[in-house]
Amino acid sequence: MSEIQPFKSIAVSGLGLIGGSIAKDIRRLYGRAVHIVGIDEDGDANYALGKAIVDSVVSYNELPGKVDLIVLATPLSIISEATQKVVAAYRGHNNTKNKVTVIDVASVKNDITSMFKNETRGAVEFVATHPMAGTEFSGIHHAKQHLFEKKPWIICEHSNNRPATLEHVASFVSKLGGVVRYVDPLTHDKYAGAVSHMTILLSNYIFDFFATEQPESLNLAGDGFISTTRLASGNPDLHHEIIKRNGRVVNELLTEFRSYLEERADITTLEPDFFQQNKRRRDEWLRNRTHD
Amino acid sequence: MSEIQPFKSIAVSGLGLIGGSIAKDIRRLYGRAVHIVGIDEDGDANYALGKAIVDSVVSYNELPGKVDLIVLATPLSIISEATQKVVAAYRGHNNTKNKVTVIDVASVKNDITSMFKNETRGAVEFVATHPMAGTEFSGIHHAKQHLFEKKPWIICEHSNNRPATLEHVASFVSKLGGVVRYVDPLTHDKYAGAVSHMTILLSNYIFDFFATEQPESLNLAGDGFISTTRLASGNPDLHHEIIKRNGRVVNELLTEFRSYLEERADITTLEPDFFQQNKRRRDEWLRNRTHD
Repeated sequence: MSEIQPFKSIAVSGLGLIGGSIAKDIRRLYGRAVHIVGIDEDGDANYALGKAIVDSVVSYNELPGKVDLIVLATPLSIISEATQKVVAAYRGHNNTKNKVTVIDVASVKNDITSMFKNETRGAVEFVATHPMAGTEFSGIHHAKQHLFEKKPWIICEHSNNRPATLEHVASFVSKLGGVVRYVDPLTHDKYAGAVSHMTILLSNYIFDFFATEQPESLNLAGDGFISTTRLASGNPDLHHEIIKRNGRVVNELLTEFRSYLEERADITTLEPDFFQQNKRRRDEWLRNRTHD
Repeated sequence: MSEIQPFKSIAVSGLGLIGGSIAKDIRRLYGRAVHIVGIDEDGDANYALGKAIVDSVVSYNELPGKVDLIVLATPLSIISEATQKVVAAYRGHNNTKNKVTVIDVASVKNDITSMFKNETRGAVEFVATHPMAGTEFSGIHHAKQHLFEKKPWIICEHSNNRPATLEHVASFVSKLGGVVRYVDPLTHDKYAGAVSHMTILLSNYIFDFFATEQPESLNLAGDGFISTTRLASGNPDLHHEIIKRNGRVVNELLTEFRSYLEERADITTLEPDFFQQNKRRRDEWLRNRTHD
């Protein structure tokens, strides 16, 4: 197997927490050997240029010929718009020698993978991806190196993707520390709907429940409450958008979770074994996931 | 106001995560100026001696005259037993010049505060306390400095406590970084039942729900799932004991939380404002609690 060449020039559209962290990791890994480009429509691109997180700032229309990878890390609500801007920029560019790869990092994948399949033509190939990493802080100021290390980074391939492109993206993602997992987009939305989207909702519900019903108790809250409700400090617009887009899946899970709680209405029957089993399974899961 | 003299010799019974972290903080703050004593019945005392976390190991009966503070950090299930051993050791010691202060660090406070009130006599004064700090790891191997920094440390006074003793304990707790809060024990159990005990239960339920109902989804789980379910990796026996002892409070809260979810059965009506408000309140709460 011949070694996969890294991308040489990479544009990041949407220099927020995720886009900014990707840019910082590229710099950490490749130094100045990889040119990093911001997009002029991005409100934080000039800040990133000033901080040398990116090396130049251009418009979408200036991208063709300049970069071999575009990372769309814009807010989820404008990802379709950003996709159309890339498509428009590459219209008429059919030179497959200068083919550009475009990946996204959005939290919902079924609609986006379909759109990416339809828009993959000419000199542009879209690959739908999702790094399962983040912090409760948003924006470029909180972007940091090593954010993706040992975290799953999903790739949802579509029928217009070429194996070589997927391999190239997988190699890039692995280099950033992500654990590549190929998942079909419906399965992604089902599983991410559980461990990510539903968890965002429950973390918010737990915070809101105590903050509203018994605000005085927050004076006593310590480490446990802080971590369990951490997601309630996350990006509110992103979280609303995610849950709206994956509403059917999350609604079903919430109904199931309510039945689950119903069956456990009386906690006096809880056995030590319940906690022991959870600890065993969670510790084992954490151990295994970091050895992937 | 005259300066409060620190305790000069401190016994820690139960060198686990909390007891061990207290011992390490005492060493960090006072070096060898404070003598730290382990108890021979404690399975980890000799390990702690070998690592110089404690300076000597004695029996309960050898404590009188040797220490001016005893920290009972044993497992919650044997705290009554440990209390009786201290009482027995000091029986006949009525020299109030050598009075010893005894604090606990247990997560439930009403029963313990009553017991401490009844047992405060002669040369022993018990003070019920609870640091709202911890990690999902238990045992002396995970003990660490700075664990209590900026975390609430509750003191539940009883009518046999002297103001000077409470002040002495508060000064010790503050020195370790804890934010002292005086709370009556029933209020403690009500509020800790919410933000601590109920949160432990919900974190376990969320983990168990996904791990049991949809184990494949754990392959996609990232940072959000890790923090929300962190408590499910906590000390299972301790968690079972806490929830059993504070069962009435937790049971009531669980019923209220189920009604709360019932009212939110259809998430498609969720507005962005819900997430924005949670973020605003939680960020503000976090900011204020560190300025206490």
